[in-house]
Amino acid sequence: MESKITLAHGSGGEKYRELVQEIFLPAYSNEYLSPLTDSAILEGGGKIAMTTDSYVVRPLFFPGGDIGSLAVSGTVNDLAVSGALPKYISVGMILEAGLEMDVLKRIVDSISNTAEKAGVKVVTGDTKVVESKSADEIFINTAGVGIFPSGRIIPTQKIEAGDRIIISGCMASHGMAVMNARNNLGFSPPIESDAAPLGKLVDAIFMNENNIIHAMRDPTRGGVAATLCEWVTSTTDIIIYQGSVPVRPDVAAACRLLGLDPLHIANEGIILFSVPEKCADSVLAALRKEEYGKDSAIIGEVREGRGTVSAVTDFGSKIRITMPNGELLPRIC
Amino acid sequence: MESKITLAHGSGGEKYRELVQEIFLPAYSNEYLSPLTDSAILEGGGKIAMTTDSYVVRPLFFPGGDIGSLAVSGTVNDLAVSGALPKYISVGMILEAGLEMDVLKRIVDSISNTAEKAGVKVVTGDTKVVESKSADEIFINTAGVGIFPSGRIIPTQKIEAGDRIIISGCMASHGMAVMNARNNLGFSPPIESDAAPLGKLVDAIFMNENNIIHAMRDPTRGGVAATLCEWVTSTTDIIIYQGSVPVRPDVAAACRLLGLDPLHIANEGIILFSVPEKCADSVLAALRKEEYGKDSAIIGEVREGRGTVSAVTDFGSKIRITMPNGELLPRIC
Repeated sequence: MESKITLAHGSGGEKYRELVQEIFLPAYSNEYLSPLTDSAILEGGGKIAMTTDSYVVRPLFFPGGDIGSLAVSGTVNDLAVSGALPKYISVGMILEAGLEMDVLKRIVDSISNTAEKAGVKVVTGDTKVVESKSADEIFINTAGVGIFPSGRIIPTQKIEAGDRIIISGCMASHGMAVMNARNNLGFSPPIESDAAPLGKLVDAIFMNENNIIHAMRDPTRGGVAATLCEWVTSTTDIIIYQGSVPVRPDVAAACRLLGLDPLHIANEGIILFSVPEKCADSVLAALRKEEYGKDSAIIGEVREGRGTVSAVTDFGSKIRITMPNGELLPRIC
Repeated sequence: MESKITLAHGSGGEKYRELVQEIFLPAYSNEYLSPLTDSAILEGGGKIAMTTDSYVVRPLFFPGGDIGSLAVSGTVNDLAVSGALPKYISVGMILEAGLEMDVLKRIVDSISNTAEKAGVKVVTGDTKVVESKSADEIFINTAGVGIFPSGRIIPTQKIEAGDRIIISGCMASHGMAVMNARNNLGFSPPIESDAAPLGKLVDAIFMNENNIIHAMRDPTRGGVAATLCEWVTSTTDIIIYQGSVPVRPDVAAACRLLGLDPLHIANEGIILFSVPEKCADSVLAALRKEEYGKDSAIIGEVREGRGTVSAVTDFGSKIRITMPNGELLPRIC
């Protein structure tokens, strides 16, 4: 391993995995941490889920969201994809001395509004202030705790041959929104982030007791590609039907112009599901009824195989999809 | 309120209270947050406690501890003083690009060791990296969840006239250790921080079912003075017996030389208790049997009054103790 931390260590890709596998897992090793799911499932009175994320996104405000709405949505979504009902969040802030009070207020209001929309409560918090130039305006950490409604079957987070892969909305919107806002790329009208809390979307699936979810994940840093590459096992392949993955036209145009693959771009308002074939249509129908799920689509399937992820074009040719390497766009969340 | 954040807003004093009362409470208002205790007590299957804290201490390593041991101890102690048994912590890190990998490893090892000592597990985590100069080496957020053993009476966190005030060890050690290390003040041998996880100390008190605790708190930023000033109500006074509050000789000497009141200096390894008079001796005895409680002492009492905190000298004169104003020593934790 390198002797110094690089930006790539904060990405969702290979270097980040290396950091987790080499540094954090050996040190903290325990049965709750080692599944490396976004939320830890904990003994409480009943089962509870707990998760955490720090947010360092720039700019602080961007079309469709801001660091505050992101800090709530991201953590709520991590709970939701564990199968839990998001209930409580903590908010820890590190502020640079000199930050405008009005900026803080706007962010706090956004946290409050997003929490209400998500149905979670901010139940504890902490604020530190560091000297000017020792931080960049504001960093936010949120931790979240969720509970498991009685009777809910907790997903194993293991895909199985025969599964269908479902996406709950258009991909790459968040990453391209932030990139456009930060670098004044001038795409107009501005690209809007998809950042949204998705607890209710997941809940809608579980309303139908026949729906089974093998795995679900919000594909943030590293994009849809990173999630699929993390899901695939040594005895399965994942095949994506190229052209079936929904992308908003403005986002697709921006990606094309910049030569970026939307599969590698971060999302904050969609979830990937791996579900048994027999449930696929029913899960899709449940998602499409929801505000944040209307663009849901079946985008691929899991087959027996040897651990590859590929996209199949309409003409039958296959393109291998790999884990993004390095940091495509730092400070996206 | 000011239009800009200042260092004082990150202190444990008046400005920090103002920030919480004016900005955070109105925005997040809910029944779990509003008691403003360090841990939120949450419905789960059973009751659970959840807390969070960010750590920005400089230097990263100091005699008696480091940012990693502090990040575990501080959060564990926040859970312990809520009456909960600390069980799970999350670790969110914000790293500056260029941080030495060896420094990170030392900190991670320290987190691991302290967690083991504290009997908690790191169950989830997150790491972000920002550009060089956008943060100061490393910031750590830990959130914690604790459970309530069946039959445990959760402290009301309200002091009552007649209570005795007990401290579990010598005060001001952490603040003076960091000050000495950071500013090369040259006190030698170096002053050691008291940073330690205190879950087992609190547990020892509850082993005796007759022990009742009205309030307990770890007096971190703002010191013992800030906790007492937050505890006192409009119908009570708190009287501290000056000279009875234990301070290590090296810490007392450093405070005298620098003209600092040890009551205002931060601690990371002691707890203040307000207990009914009838329990005071029994609580004291339980504390003194523990590794981190051997210097415990009864240091004062609660009387009917009008909301003042004072220290009474051996000659009977009274000195008013007030909430520290502004930031005495930024980035102490």
